[in-house]
Amino acid sequence: MLTVFGSTALDTIRTSNTVLKDVLGGAATFAGISASFFVDTGLIAVVGSDFPKKYHKILAKYLDLDGLVVKEGKTFRYDGSYDLTLTKRTTNKTELNVLGSFKPTVPENYKKSEFVYLANNDPDQNTSLIKEFENVKFSMCDTIEYWIATKRPSVIKMIKAVDAVVINDEEAKLLTKEHNLIKCAKKMMEWGSKYVIIKKGEHGSLLFFEDVIFPSVAFSLEDIVDPTGAGDSFAGAMIGYLASKKDTGLAEIKKAVIYGNVLGSFAVEKFGVDGLLKTSKAKIQTRVDQYQNMVEF
Amino acid sequence: MLTVFGSTALDTIRTSNTVLKDVLGGAATFAGISASFFVDTGLIAVVGSDFPKKYHKILAKYLDLDGLVVKEGKTFRYDGSYDLTLTKRTTNKTELNVLGSFKPTVPENYKKSEFVYLANNDPDQNTSLIKEFENVKFSMCDTIEYWIATKRPSVIKMIKAVDAVVINDEEAKLLTKEHNLIKCAKKMMEWGSKYVIIKKGEHGSLLFFEDVIFPSVAFSLEDIVDPTGAGDSFAGAMIGYLASKKDTGLAEIKKAVIYGNVLGSFAVEKFGVDGLLKTSKAKIQTRVDQYQNMVEF
Repeated sequence: MLTVFGSTALDTIRTSNTVLKDVLGGAATFAGISASFFVDTGLIAVVGSDFPKKYHKILAKYLDLDGLVVKEGKTFRYDGSYDLTLTKRTTNKTELNVLGSFKPTVPENYKKSEFVYLANNDPDQNTSLIKEFENVKFSMCDTIEYWIATKRPSVIKMIKAVDAVVINDEEAKLLTKEHNLIKCAKKMMEWGSKYVIIKKGEHGSLLFFEDVIFPSVAFSLEDIVDPTGAGDSFAGAMIGYLASKKDTGLAEIKKAVIYGNVLGSFAVEKFGVDGLLKTSKAKIQTRVDQYQNMVEF
Repeated sequence: MLTVFGSTALDTIRTSNTVLKDVLGGAATFAGISASFFVDTGLIAVVGSDFPKKYHKILAKYLDLDGLVVKEGKTFRYDGSYDLTLTKRTTNKTELNVLGSFKPTVPENYKKSEFVYLANNDPDQNTSLIKEFENVKFSMCDTIEYWIATKRPSVIKMIKAVDAVVINDEEAKLLTKEHNLIKCAKKMMEWGSKYVIIKKGEHGSLLFFEDVIFPSVAFSLEDIVDPTGAGDSFAGAMIGYLASKKDTGLAEIKKAVIYGNVLGSFAVEKFGVDGLLKTSKAKIQTRVDQYQNMVEF
């Protein structure tokens, strides 16, 4: 079993031609749904009493919700605008609401999870929560600029506490104060992470393990609708795939990255989580085969 | 035989910790030397009477110089500064000098060249020069922002006149007025180019042919010294490899892109052309094997 701890949100997404208000979002939502195509996945998250029933139904279809806390108050909200090229996002507003005072705990039936994904939460919460699991075989975390800016020592401590870090290129540079991504990864590995995965958006990703570098391209798409959640979907697919294999050797981790690229590509094809909801195990496998064919030479 | 038409320059390169003045540079220099590892390569270019003998000797070691014109006056000079991350370049000064009035012609013994690379020259000159060759099997051109801004219709006409375009991502967007690189490539193919190769610097490249997209990563390097000429080295290696195979089928073009990535990686490891001068056929093959191993999953 896999446990995903992170945010469930109501997102407002603004692109050059569309505004969608209060759609289902959040790092754990994307990561959890992605992972659920590979393995039973439990969610640790909080929503407010205003969380729409239809979204609760979607989550329930894909995820075990024993760890989903419904608290009196408003759900965490994120409001962001993309530029015309869909490559730059500006945050208009973040309302923590019930997330602000959330004290996550691990439900009894999640404590045996061998795979744990800690999304871009407060690094202190991540570091503390991972200790509640009794039998972790592979843990992975993400982080964001906000935590790097406000709690860098805690981020480094969190990285020491997990097996793998998955992080954006710009955030990797900010965190490590290096320009070159290989140097960034080396620093994170020195801090104690066995694996480092640096996400480069449309340019794919770089996986690092000991002396090995595994660069991979993104799945090429002509029509991108909404990049929200692509990185979370990537991470969820990665750890979901690994959990389904119960194997975290380098060969499987490389394959996990390919599944990550593919789920990221489904995520960006529609608004919000719609791209993930429209996919299936069969469609994922078809696209992984296409990917393999695409990069062969 | 391969003919390369382009600039030979004296470059001033400024990085955060080094300034090198009047070093050997120019698109045709990088492309020609790169190509020469694969096939006999002739150069069409102009230099001034101030062009140092030691640089002439370097060119003569790698290239046939029947097409190199030495004109009374000063050699074309380019002066550029890189930012701390070596990803952004600012042009400080461009002095055309003898290049400004150069009227290129094809030497008799180059006219049978089956492979022709037209570097980022005036597009009208490129379009006119290609007609002087009698037996072209495969021609490829590059272009830059300056020509897109000042002679866009001529650039489009040039693209129609060649088999392949190799172009930077930002320039592809400028030229085609599209954001998505697949859309950019489709437009250039509609204009008449059979193959389009979009270079993405440290992120590798995308090759397009009919419905096929072949994305490839760059060879990962921890220490980059000077990105000058990386794209020209990429293009030169591509067409040099193809000329050596006398085969321009898709399978060989994909391999040509890999050789392009590898020669680009040698180019950026040292200042100016030093990275290319320090490499060899054996080192190139070793790195191509490493590349293959690196991307395998």
